[in-house]
Amino acid sequence: MENFADRLICAIEKKQNSSVVGLDPRLEQIPSYIQEKNIKKFGKNFKAAGEAILEFNKGIIDAVYEIVPAVKPQIAFYEQYGPEGIQAFIETVNYAKDKGLVTIEDGKRNDIKSTAAAYGNAHIGKVDVFGQEKPCFDVDAITVNAYLGIDGVQPFLENVKKYQKGIFVLVKTSNPSSGELQDLQSENQTIYEIMAELCNKWGENTEGKRGYSPVGAVVGATYPKQAETLRKIMPSCIFLVPGYGAQGGGADDVIPCFNKDGYGAIVNSSRGIIFAFKKDEKYTEKDFVEAAHQAALKMKEDITSSMKKNNIYPW
Amino acid sequence: MENFADRLICAIEKKQNSSVVGLDPRLEQIPSYIQEKNIKKFGKNFKAAGEAILEFNKGIIDAVYEIVPAVKPQIAFYEQYGPEGIQAFIETVNYAKDKGLVTIEDGKRNDIKSTAAAYGNAHIGKVDVFGQEKPCFDVDAITVNAYLGIDGVQPFLENVKKYQKGIFVLVKTSNPSSGELQDLQSENQTIYEIMAELCNKWGENTEGKRGYSPVGAVVGATYPKQAETLRKIMPSCIFLVPGYGAQGGGADDVIPCFNKDGYGAIVNSSRGIIFAFKKDEKYTEKDFVEAAHQAALKMKEDITSSMKKNNIYPW
Repeated sequence: MENFADRLICAIEKKQNSSVVGLDPRLEQIPSYIQEKNIKKFGKNFKAAGEAILEFNKGIIDAVYEIVPAVKPQIAFYEQYGPEGIQAFIETVNYAKDKGLVTIEDGKRNDIKSTAAAYGNAHIGKVDVFGQEKPCFDVDAITVNAYLGIDGVQPFLENVKKYQKGIFVLVKTSNPSSGELQDLQSENQTIYEIMAELCNKWGENTEGKRGYSPVGAVVGATYPKQAETLRKIMPSCIFLVPGYGAQGGGADDVIPCFNKDGYGAIVNSSRGIIFAFKKDEKYTEKDFVEAAHQAALKMKEDITSSMKKNNIYPW
Repeated sequence: MENFADRLICAIEKKQNSSVVGLDPRLEQIPSYIQEKNIKKFGKNFKAAGEAILEFNKGIIDAVYEIVPAVKPQIAFYEQYGPEGIQAFIETVNYAKDKGLVTIEDGKRNDIKSTAAAYGNAHIGKVDVFGQEKPCFDVDAITVNAYLGIDGVQPFLENVKKYQKGIFVLVKTSNPSSGELQDLQSENQTIYEIMAELCNKWGENTEGKRGYSPVGAVVGATYPKQAETLRKIMPSCIFLVPGYGAQGGGADDVIPCFNKDGYGAIVNSSRGIIFAFKKDEKYTEKDFVEAAHQAALKMKEDITSSMKKNNIYPW
């Protein structure tokens, strides 16, 4: 298996697309015929919720797998349905991987030592079950919250190296209150800058052939000026960029997240793609696959035309 | 249902014990006869892992439910076995609640807005499934990482109020590298002090009859001096104190976490209680229940005698 960063860059290059699709399947927004079919089969329970989500996700993945390099399932939307939701998550990941997509779990997991190792093994490694090593969630990469310092990151790093996986450390998040803690000043630096330096350090000597590290950073599209600074602090880190679209970030706002070589960032959109059928009167809910397909193409065009305009288009 | 803080204080008072037991069931350390029985029944798979964990946990809960007010299951040790592990977690929580124990999930969950709401509903609220509200993990309280600021805490707070649940915000964690970020200075305050002020603010006007808030804080036993400062910043917050025992914190180290009234802190021990049978030659693995029972009594005695010595014993 290749270095995660190389695999991701290669997938971006192949699709000529730096945008990724967030798989955040809000049950109540899934087409009603999918909901009803699964309610009829299983009842109004978590099993039906998991099955409806999986069916919906397969449609979305079919719609976008030839367009985008990666998908980013947000585990909260699966975990909320208990074991059945987790099962839907794992099957979604497997389906996406079968279609050649890189899978990035938005889990923001964090803990220390053997507990962090349990998370790391489960999500980006292998789990020891009575002396046998088995994959469990087995995504290609996961987001990590590093409030606990290196003790909370090291066990994930070990899995990154052992299994050629990736992590994205929360640095400057896209939400309005991200500054409450992250923008605090400490000796002429903000906390997010200090976190960026740590992140850069944690990724040292892990770079792949393309010069990027499998230790990436989450940097919100809603803070383009901060992204410019962060790009300099973390030259080899790939930025996972939430906040484009529904959260208010535009295609020009994500430009500072890229390096001059045209790589170094992937921009996520969730609702704007997967629930695109709700946003155009020409679609009925039966058209959700086609609507997602068109929305993914539109996002690709939106980002790449902005990249071209800024002379950072690598293809 | 009463305010979470009142329920917890009441349970502490009833048991005359401020210590709690961490349910971190490391599979390979569970008595081999429990492992083998479940392997024989299900094979070397996640199902057998989940069933072995559940059987072990029931023994531990039986051993300690008359001694301690609460248990703290660490979800990483369940989540690593996928849906079957999550099932074991939920059944463990239900068993503990049936025995009258307060359940505190160590999950360190964090995200923003509707995603944080999905976590909040799943863990300390109710989940909407096709228009019906169902409990899922349904613990009494959960640990939360607030690197994202209030956006990441608000959805949990709403569940705290709506369902009389609790949260414990990571403030100063027990691990060696906790200072890497948390000890940074910003305008004469450390980040953990600033987080403590935020935590205190988030808990305002949520206090129960006993004067404590259901918005608590995680403060490591390994940092007694910092705990002294934090106790002043957060007078109404209950501290969840990890780091006692295996991590190096002693009974005297946890004293600064208490208020003068003798309440305001619960001290956790995981390995020291649940795997006590491994630490004394007089026990075989068949004695794991009795060993846990004795270790829980010993911890109670250790903490309370230290409290008495420091004149903060409320009973």
